[in-house]
Amino acid sequence: MNVNHEYKFFVRYSEVDPMKFVHNSKYLVYFEEARIDLVRKNNYPYNQIESDGYIFPMSEAKLEYKSSIYYGEYIKVIVSLAYLKNFSMKFNYKIIKPDGKIACEGYTVHACVDKRNNDFVDIPEKLRMILEKYID
Amino acid sequence: MNVNHEYKFFVRYSEVDPMKFVHNSKYLVYFEEARIDLVRKNNYPYNQIESDGYIFPMSEAKLEYKSSIYYGEYIKVIVSLAYLKNFSMKFNYKIIKPDGKIACEGYTVHACVDKRNNDFVDIPEKLRMILEKYID
Amino acid sequence: MNVNHEYKFFVRYSEVDPMKFVHNSKYLVYFEEARIDLVRKNNYPYNQIESDGYIFPMSEAKLEYKSSIYYGEYIKVIVSLAYLKNFSMKFNYKIIKPDGKIACEGYTVHACVDKRNNDFVDIPEKLRMILEKYID
Amino acid sequence: MNVNHEYKFFVRYSEVDPMKFVHNSKYLVYFEEARIDLVRKNNYPYNQIESDGYIFPMSEAKLEYKSSIYYGEYIKVIVSLAYLKNFSMKFNYKIIKPDGKIACEGYTVHACVDKRNNDFVDIPEKLRMILEKYID
Repeated sequence: MNVNHEYKFFVRYSEVDPMKFVHNSKYLVYFEEARIDLVRKNNYPYNQIESDGYIFPMSEAKLEYKSSIYYGEYIKVIVSLAYLKNFSMKFNYKIIKPDGKIACEGYTVHACVDKRNNDFVDIPEKLRMILEKYID
Repeated sequence: MNVNHEYKFFVRYSEVDPMKFVHNSKYLVYFEEARIDLVRKNNYPYNQIESDGYIFPMSEAKLEYKSSIYYGEYIKVIVSLAYLKNFSMKFNYKIIKPDGKIACEGYTVHACVDKRNNDFVDIPEKLRMILEKYID
Repeated sequence: MNVNHEYKFFVRYSEVDPMKFVHNSKYLVYFEEARIDLVRKNNYPYNQIESDGYIFPMSEAKLEYKSSIYYGEYIKVIVSLAYLKNFSMKFNYKIIKPDGKIACEGYTVHACVDKRNNDFVDIPEKLRMILEKYID
Repeated sequence: MNVNHEYKFFVRYSEVDPMKFVHNSKYLVYFEEARIDLVRKNNYPYNQIESDGYIFPMSEAKLEYKSSIYYGEYIKVIVSLAYLKNFSMKFNYKIIKPDGKIACEGYTVHACVDKRNNDFVDIPEKLRMILEKYID
């Protein structure tokens, strides 16, 4: 269907490093909050997914930092699905600056894991139906 | 010459997330502290490099998470150089768990930038001589 | 005048520790973002205050943790001014959980400092006029 | 007996904010790591305490920031016990800069809680015997 999810927020002061840029590690937090916002807006909040018995440890991440994010900027993360497999999923991200410039492009891959025993498990149907709408 | 640098430390409590694993974003902080430890041990501390006029914004990062790091583990980061170009450098990392398992493999690419004007600039000779020893 | 400022947000996944509570250090980040939101909503964003030459290092903080904040909760920080002196200011905070319970009460004291020389300096008039409205 | 525990470490790059100071929230992380180092050095690591069934949520914290900590500084946290009660304990801290100046003084109060049901519980004897040595 090619729907993207957008998550917008102000950069926090404590995320900015002595170079006056957002610290490189915080982009992974922004990616995470964009994923979480996607399921929240689809009425399946992440804490409910976890209490339903699933966790999604990250197996891979790639980030291309294209232009710095400065303190005070209002940022947009665009998140979509690259693929959904039985036990794993891949998200694509773009972080956009207020002037429309791309700050960062990247992806993350996650396993779907049963939180009781840490075994791989099928992505639950309720989550799959939400995520399918966002496949690129 | 194929020398690696090893940086060892205990995982912090505040770095561990509700899944009981070290949060995925903290691995980039561990990579950073390993780079910084490398230059510190070679008597060119990072704050001196910055006061000499250079900063090294990250342009790319890749992380493959291979097994989770738990609270209380004593971790080792092995860092080496993949390449040194005129204006950029690439580091390789392995994070090793106490049992010898690889927790994460990855790399980061950094530009060398003049902190007064944010222009690309040659890696300073003093730093280049240190880093060359660690090229894979 | 006794106006309070309210700042609302969802707890982030990476802020939650292995006890499943928001980590104690994150409350100071929440206090900071509430202060910053207060001046932003009054059309004097913090990055502009800094570029006007002022910084506000913390000189004191007190936190009373009254009930834990869990992942997924939508939280409200209520911030007001305890006092404004020539070179310093004190903020009061309450963090409120979705069920109305107080999660934390606290205060922070900040000096007003000239960022060029780190000397104490009068709180700028433009900022003082904003903050005065929020004195308890 | 009046024994203090000292925990030493280098400030991390990602902990320093745009004012070039260590961010005010990181001091609580430093306090925590000093507490954890104390029990680790006494052969009762914190992850073992937790797997023995105890957690120690913070009920109160106070911090007096006396002089800024800058990037690259090698810092010392001195931690001792103010008191041990049945269900709670209070720690005192001093953070010392390389030149001997006090960067921060503060305290934290913690409840001793049974992690299965979140009820208050007596501080376990093994931990009490360690902490008693550090009472001021």
